[in-house]
Amino acid sequence: MPSHEQMVSAVERYVEAFEKSDPEMVVSLYAPDATVEDPIGTPIHRGHDAIREFYTRSMTMGPKLELDGPVRTGGGYAAFPFSVVLDYGGQKKIEVIDTFKFDEEGKVTEMRAFWSPANMHGFEGQ
Amino acid sequence: MPSHEQMVSAVERYVEAFEKSDPEMVVSLYAPDATVEDPIGTPIHRGHDAIREFYTRSMTMGPKLELDGPVRTGGGYAAFPFSVVLDYGGQKKIEVIDTFKFDEEGKVTEMRAFWSPANMHGFEGQ
Repeated sequence: MPSHEQMVSAVERYVEAFEKSDPEMVVSLYAPDATVEDPIGTPIHRGHDAIREFYTRSMTMGPKLELDGPVRTGGGYAAFPFSVVLDYGGQKKIEVIDTFKFDEEGKVTEMRAFWSPANMHGFEGQ
Repeated sequence: MPSHEQMVSAVERYVEAFEKSDPEMVVSLYAPDATVEDPIGTPIHRGHDAIREFYTRSMTMGPKLELDGPVRTGGGYAAFPFSVVLDYGGQKKIEVIDTFKFDEEGKVTEMRAFWSPANMHGFEGQ
């Protein structure tokens, strides 16, 4: 099982990938047959191709991730609170918690993103 | 599916139950056959009796919960970041993220707590 430090490092690389708008850097964190459920309750993206397509689309508007607290780890999982900031004034943001499940090699095999429209702030119509 | 507000209210009652050191108040949030995995990766407590015993034991030292950020909800789940504060000077705390899965009646059917010793601060020997 990966160590706390290895899992925290993966989360930091995930944040960095958004900073660089680099979908391939995100894909490299995932195992080949990994699943991504974002937001939770919506159809799952499975495998590197589907994951690459999902993140390429997600990064179109240049979102950045800002960690809102420490990464919690246990039992081969990491969970972390963050905001997706959609412009740098910070007027538009989505408050999210992600969970990553890791395999023995330290690759993410399952990602679930906990958020819904109730966690979106500053968007038109609100 | 319960609303965002209903799920947030359940989280607030969970925090309140620790404030009151009231295991029965926690049990009332759970469905009869609910599961509790705390911390994630350890044996699961299933059903009201096992859950009552777990929280009665957990509350022995008078821990209080302090939310560290907003409750995220989606797809019938809530996820929330908090600290377990073990004395009111705040010297000892555990940083945790819990996820609650809800049924149609708004009862919690599955709780998972994401933390490990790496998220404990101020304990002896650290």
